[in-house]
Amino acid sequence: MANLDRVVAVDLGGTGLKAALVDRELRTSNVVRTPTERRGGIARPDQVVDVVAQLQAVGDQQGFRVRAAGLAVPGIVDDDLGLVRFSANLGWRNLAVRELVAASTHLPVAVGHDVRIGGLAEFRVGAAKEARNVLFVPIGTGIASAIFLDGQPFVAGGYAGEIGHIVVEPGGPKCGCGNRGCLETIASAAAVARRYNARSGSRVTGAIDVVERMADDSDARAVWAEAIEALAYALVIAITVLGPEVVVIGGGLAESGDVLLAPLRETLLKRLTFQRRPDVVLAALGDRAGYMGAGLLGWEQVGVTPKGVRR
Amino acid sequence: MANLDRVVAVDLGGTGLKAALVDRELRTSNVVRTPTERRGGIARPDQVVDVVAQLQAVGDQQGFRVRAAGLAVPGIVDDDLGLVRFSANLGWRNLAVRELVAASTHLPVAVGHDVRIGGLAEFRVGAAKEARNVLFVPIGTGIASAIFLDGQPFVAGGYAGEIGHIVVEPGGPKCGCGNRGCLETIASAAAVARRYNARSGSRVTGAIDVVERMADDSDARAVWAEAIEALAYALVIAITVLGPEVVVIGGGLAESGDVLLAPLRETLLKRLTFQRRPDVVLAALGDRAGYMGAGLLGWEQVGVTPKGVRR
Repeated sequence: MANLDRVVAVDLGGTGLKAALVDRELRTSNVVRTPTERRGGIARPDQVVDVVAQLQAVGDQQGFRVRAAGLAVPGIVDDDLGLVRFSANLGWRNLAVRELVAASTHLPVAVGHDVRIGGLAEFRVGAAKEARNVLFVPIGTGIASAIFLDGQPFVAGGYAGEIGHIVVEPGGPKCGCGNRGCLETIASAAAVARRYNARSGSRVTGAIDVVERMADDSDARAVWAEAIEALAYALVIAITVLGPEVVVIGGGLAESGDVLLAPLRETLLKRLTFQRRPDVVLAALGDRAGYMGAGLLGWEQVGVTPKGVRR
Repeated sequence: MANLDRVVAVDLGGTGLKAALVDRELRTSNVVRTPTERRGGIARPDQVVDVVAQLQAVGDQQGFRVRAAGLAVPGIVDDDLGLVRFSANLGWRNLAVRELVAASTHLPVAVGHDVRIGGLAEFRVGAAKEARNVLFVPIGTGIASAIFLDGQPFVAGGYAGEIGHIVVEPGGPKCGCGNRGCLETIASAAAVARRYNARSGSRVTGAIDVVERMADDSDARAVWAEAIEALAYALVIAITVLGPEVVVIGGGLAESGDVLLAPLRETLLKRLTFQRRPDVVLAALGDRAGYMGAGLLGWEQVGVTPKGVRR
């Protein structure tokens, strides 16, 4: 007989919200994808409450037993307190989102940082599920990372893994963090589009447009080559410090596939001497990593390890 | 009544061997300091056996009960197997040093990597004993690091923490690792002396000589400033990736005290924006860190946590 237990998983981003019901084998159903609703520039916390309640109701109707909710959010997140200390993308500051959702839905709720949670999904059930030392690098609007060391997620109070702010070009482009020449000013998906536009006078909206023009546009090739070089430089350093067995590249830029991965892997491996030579692979779960990881968190909240998931 | 249990602790380096008896409160006695004996360029493993046996005999005579031995060695060390896979400093390759010492002395023996063990001592009882996330950076002939994350030592199969090989000057001086411009080619104690000699035509033998000449020698000041700049650059990156609360600077170069620490701390903190701002401090245990850490290992080998030592 099928197990009817489910958790609600929500991945709340600055532009979109994804949610689903997740079973004990981490299979998802009833996926919701909708724009993040804002009021006065601030993401409406009520939208999260509504989506959780809606999926809870759907679950009830279908005869499921909804046990918990897991929520992935961007920003500085205190997982233990279920508190979003600061989120530039959502406009939240010191929002006790766990309490808010729990009070309305009467479910146990777990909250975590979107990158760490997405990395957790890749680490437990995705591209790095065989490894104990893993660096997960989502490349999108910015560049972050989630680190798993000796089989454990590494948090350091939320400060760990900010490889997007390794300075790769001293005196380079101004970064949102206040420094100059950070990796993400050269190699994030947003930076690739911006730098191509500045160089060519075009108005593309995403890195994927730059990739599509590479065959017959030397500006596109130059911007892309600079991004690869910057990524290789920063990843070599991260590999030297952390010694991962697997580096998982995710986020929007990873959708370009081998156009990114092949030259990145080649440049990077050429520079390693005595260091461990990691597998450099694409993320396996794509943009589902966030809600699958949120599902994992939800299950952990009620003491369940989903089937096929290593601890 | 005083507890009479002791362990033998040995710190074997490329040039010198230090050893002591260590009690349950990590106090040391009968300290031995002697040059490392070599035959045909290779450090004599028998010397370690002899020193352990000698301290064991001294302990017996003084009415102590010698329970175990701990050994710190440089190189690529498999702590679990008690095996030195490769040590350039000792000329050892695949040497089962734990078995060797255990067979002669009939003691339980623990073997570990000198930097990780020295870091362990600073982490447990030294300069970083209040922190959970710590980066210990000994600067001597080379530059290495030991990393403690969320309260645990981080090993990654022996590959972690090689911050001496962060490239700080692409195309810079050739490094023993095969790359160019690694941190340790600019900022190790050996590199500081070498670079000062090359620049000034002098023949100093150590970094401390360079420090002593800084007041009235612009070459000494220039070489020192380059070393500080390179250290700050690499440490900012390590802080960005790891988010430590405390950075402990040790090794021979740390003996220069505030001449190193004050400008390093200032340069480094100036470059941090959103990152955690760690305390940057000097090692507390000096060159005793190696054998105190070896003593910790020895006690752990017989299931004892020395008094006053957090787990």
